[in-house]
Amino acid sequence: MHAFSAQDPAFEARVRASFARQQFMATLGARLLRIEPGLCEIELAQRPELTQQHGYLHAGAGTAIADSAGGYAAYSLMPAGSSVLAVEFKLNLLEPACGERFVGRGRVLRAGRRLTVCELELEAWEQGRARRCFYGTQTVVCLPDQPDDATRG
Amino acid sequence: MHAFSAQDPAFEARVRASFARQQFMATLGARLLRIEPGLCEIELAQRPELTQQHGYLHAGAGTAIADSAGGYAAYSLMPAGSSVLAVEFKLNLLEPACGERFVGRGRVLRAGRRLTVCELELEAWEQGRARRCFYGTQTVVCLPDQPDDATRG
Amino acid sequence: MHAFSAQDPAFEARVRASFARQQFMATLGARLLRIEPGLCEIELAQRPELTQQHGYLHAGAGTAIADSAGGYAAYSLMPAGSSVLAVEFKLNLLEPACGERFVGRGRVLRAGRRLTVCELELEAWEQGRARRCFYGTQTVVCLPDQPDDATRG
Amino acid sequence: MHAFSAQDPAFEARVRASFARQQFMATLGARLLRIEPGLCEIELAQRPELTQQHGYLHAGAGTAIADSAGGYAAYSLMPAGSSVLAVEFKLNLLEPACGERFVGRGRVLRAGRRLTVCELELEAWEQGRARRCFYGTQTVVCLPDQPDDATRG
Repeated sequence: MHAFSAQDPAFEARVRASFARQQFMATLGARLLRIEPGLCEIELAQRPELTQQHGYLHAGAGTAIADSAGGYAAYSLMPAGSSVLAVEFKLNLLEPACGERFVGRGRVLRAGRRLTVCELELEAWEQGRARRCFYGTQTVVCLPDQPDDATRG
Repeated sequence: MHAFSAQDPAFEARVRASFARQQFMATLGARLLRIEPGLCEIELAQRPELTQQHGYLHAGAGTAIADSAGGYAAYSLMPAGSSVLAVEFKLNLLEPACGERFVGRGRVLRAGRRLTVCELELEAWEQGRARRCFYGTQTVVCLPDQPDDATRG
Repeated sequence: MHAFSAQDPAFEARVRASFARQQFMATLGARLLRIEPGLCEIELAQRPELTQQHGYLHAGAGTAIADSAGGYAAYSLMPAGSSVLAVEFKLNLLEPACGERFVGRGRVLRAGRRLTVCELELEAWEQGRARRCFYGTQTVVCLPDQPDDATRG
Repeated sequence: MHAFSAQDPAFEARVRASFARQQFMATLGARLLRIEPGLCEIELAQRPELTQQHGYLHAGAGTAIADSAGGYAAYSLMPAGSSVLAVEFKLNLLEPACGERFVGRGRVLRAGRRLTVCELELEAWEQGRARRCFYGTQTVVCLPDQPDDATRG
């Protein structure tokens, strides 16, 4: 594992502000648990509103927090005034997403000037123990001169 | 493209009942638009509650309807009394998911006894025109003797 | 399907020259079958030297021609003086790669200034009939000011 | 990381015999470096015959040894009398595959009765130092009653 250092000393505030603009995170009930250079964790408590047909967490809800965690892990290493966009991701669903709460984790594997590759995972927590449910990789791109809070249109 | 035929004449009712058990689809506001042997479409109207930081549909919400559409496209071809579980998926995010409404579409590429491979896509609709935003593939597995409505635990 | 047009009128010669520099294509016995704007096909005859343990084409050999086909489909749309590099790919192995000869095909799904996304497939031909064996997607990047024939080091 | 134990005490001989039947490994010049329960490494020396247009290892050659390493990592945990087939894989190409020799490594992430998920990587070695070039995941399936050395047809 590499140790990364952030080029923008205000990276944490920048990531937290962007996370707060993701209204879908509030809809899910997700919260930003941890943000460090190249690493991000997002937590989600299980609720009936988030289930698929067997009562597990829907893969789309698990993907949402894993994808955002990967994007913010990458974004933590990007310069001020930039924004981040996912290009692709793949997840292997190792186990049913069954638990009391879930942690989506993104970790940078390779940080380039434009393209960053992250490892994504989703952990299910039950009675204090974690199992890895989803695992995969993601590519994101840095948009250098497009501040994250710019208004569209 | 192959034409598939369903071995279970009641496949549509079986898929609709399973979709109705996916509480996350109701949370998103998604509805089952079309179910045919080997094909499924799920529709979602854009709402502020579903957005990421730039106001686009969050990739997790788009993935949710694409993943469910693929699962149900595959499930339409499976026998009565079975259930379906996704094994893996990958999506390329071709364009930002920007539109008034979205259609997640799953189409079976290869149906095996155990493993089925689907093509997934997400279309964004704006002023009557569609653009393909997400595209990829998915593997799902058939659990032959586990009815979809069995209670867990 | 989109129709693409090439910005470099000499795209075909540029692609053929690059293909000729891929010594691995000669090692496999592969030949460039077809190159059009946004589309490329590479053909390979089955030989014992290319097999995996059951006598099928090894997935690595099938991937080699599909990956190169995708790269050249994308490269056909790039400007003169650029070079191309794959960023990621995913393949679903739908059927064993069993046949007399194989066609790897790459088709551009979305062409951006930097990033291009392609659809990849491998067809197996036997007695005049084709079956699709591998299917998936690929992302490639354009390196704008690095001519393809520049010497490394 | 999990520690896995093999159910077949003769797993190593079984894997080595299967590897020896992969004629493509001999064509590449690859050799089986290490086989343990749930882990496999395959080594390949760089040669001009294996290069792409810039002189790097062709992604298809790197994929070949990573894919075989994943298949054999999974196969080491499968019962005697079974065979193994890859279902899908995805690789992110983190760095150009530039080095004197390469190690493809497969490591089991989750071993099921039918489906096994592996982590795949390709390392490039130069002057005694390794860099990770390719990284991704793979799904393989166990065919329980089809011995690996059965004749096709």
